[in-house]
Amino acid sequence: MPSARYRRFLTGAIAVVSLAIAMAAPAQAQQASVRAKVVLQMSESDPAKWSLALNNAKNIQTDLGAANVDVELVAYGPGIGMLKADSIVGNRVDEALAAGVKVVACENTMRAQRLTQGDMLGKISYVPAGVVEIMQRQQQGWAYIRP
Amino acid sequence: MPSARYRRFLTGAIAVVSLAIAMAAPAQAQQASVRAKVVLQMSESDPAKWSLALNNAKNIQTDLGAANVDVELVAYGPGIGMLKADSIVGNRVDEALAAGVKVVACENTMRAQRLTQGDMLGKISYVPAGVVEIMQRQQQGWAYIRP
Amino acid sequence: MPSARYRRFLTGAIAVVSLAIAMAAPAQAQQASVRAKVVLQMSESDPAKWSLALNNAKNIQTDLGAANVDVELVAYGPGIGMLKADSIVGNRVDEALAAGVKVVACENTMRAQRLTQGDMLGKISYVPAGVVEIMQRQQQGWAYIRP
Repeated sequence: MPSARYRRFLTGAIAVVSLAIAMAAPAQAQQASVRAKVVLQMSESDPAKWSLALNNAKNIQTDLGAANVDVELVAYGPGIGMLKADSIVGNRVDEALAAGVKVVACENTMRAQRLTQGDMLGKISYVPAGVVEIMQRQQQGWAYIRP
Repeated sequence: MPSARYRRFLTGAIAVVSLAIAMAAPAQAQQASVRAKVVLQMSESDPAKWSLALNNAKNIQTDLGAANVDVELVAYGPGIGMLKADSIVGNRVDEALAAGVKVVACENTMRAQRLTQGDMLGKISYVPAGVVEIMQRQQQGWAYIRP
Repeated sequence: MPSARYRRFLTGAIAVVSLAIAMAAPAQAQQASVRAKVVLQMSESDPAKWSLALNNAKNIQTDLGAANVDVELVAYGPGIGMLKADSIVGNRVDEALAAGVKVVACENTMRAQRLTQGDMLGKISYVPAGVVEIMQRQQQGWAYIRP
């Protein structure tokens, strides 16, 4: 049997090592290679910008492989028209959805413009506030592209 | 060789260290709940964009609660006009300041346009270089919105 | 008291664990003072925006010291014209390159516009997809500026 003195030494050493691990561990976690994730903002009314954003989404999926990247497109403010049922890029939005892009509309904007889900493209999703969604995605480690 | 009893003691010690590691790991999960912080860029001369940026700031505060989020708006380049004393959104900038939004002007831009603090709205703050402020905020973990 | 041999074993074990922690710990230090890195997007056809982006790059280098910051400018989509041999900001792009800014063109965009490297400014670099480059830089910890 070790002496009581030696056991105190070991207990102290283990405490110091444990504390050091607890302090070091969070930083280490950040180094791990992150999954590719990107949130695209659409806040403009110009349909040429809508096409550019859809091109960006497509190029990202082509380059990285659609299975290897999460792509989310958030329309809000003047960009909400991109996701209305009569959008001139409606077919391309449907293609993006079919390819696995998450497409979301901002409910704040919809309320301000008196739009309901019945006015929008059929397969999209909704978030309470588009700008907050974009913000939170970034703080969760997603990249941000503003086309 | 140590006694079997002593090896049991060591096994216990290793279990304690392993537990410490296991407790440290959830720090990774803390990334999901970092304090919400966002820096908004205003680098355009179009007053409609100024309104959009102010709407964004307001919606972020409304959605998350003003006490739960740091919002900073940085005006530089062609966007500096937003913060001049004669800005047509001056009242709204004052409202944002009163609501706790930090509003800063770029001194590089002011120098280039021969503006002094006397030419600007009264309650704003100043940074040496707006673009560097935005950059540094991001590297400090803030989200970035370019309206 | 345990044998001298056993104490050597324990001392060795603690040394190994401490070394592992010491190797993990610097990651934490990097959080406090990460190297300044910024990727600038140029996706617009307006030459006034090209000048703004070049001003941003220059101001960042002036403010932080060119040796202390990595600046990369990525042109893609309608912004590719900035880097064509006949670009009206060609001289300023060369100055930025000489000052250590990395300037890259998107090969996806070049293919779509039937451009070859012979059509472009001489000293720039190339990436397969500009939008993916911007995305990956952000996920590697670079700040993002969309002028």
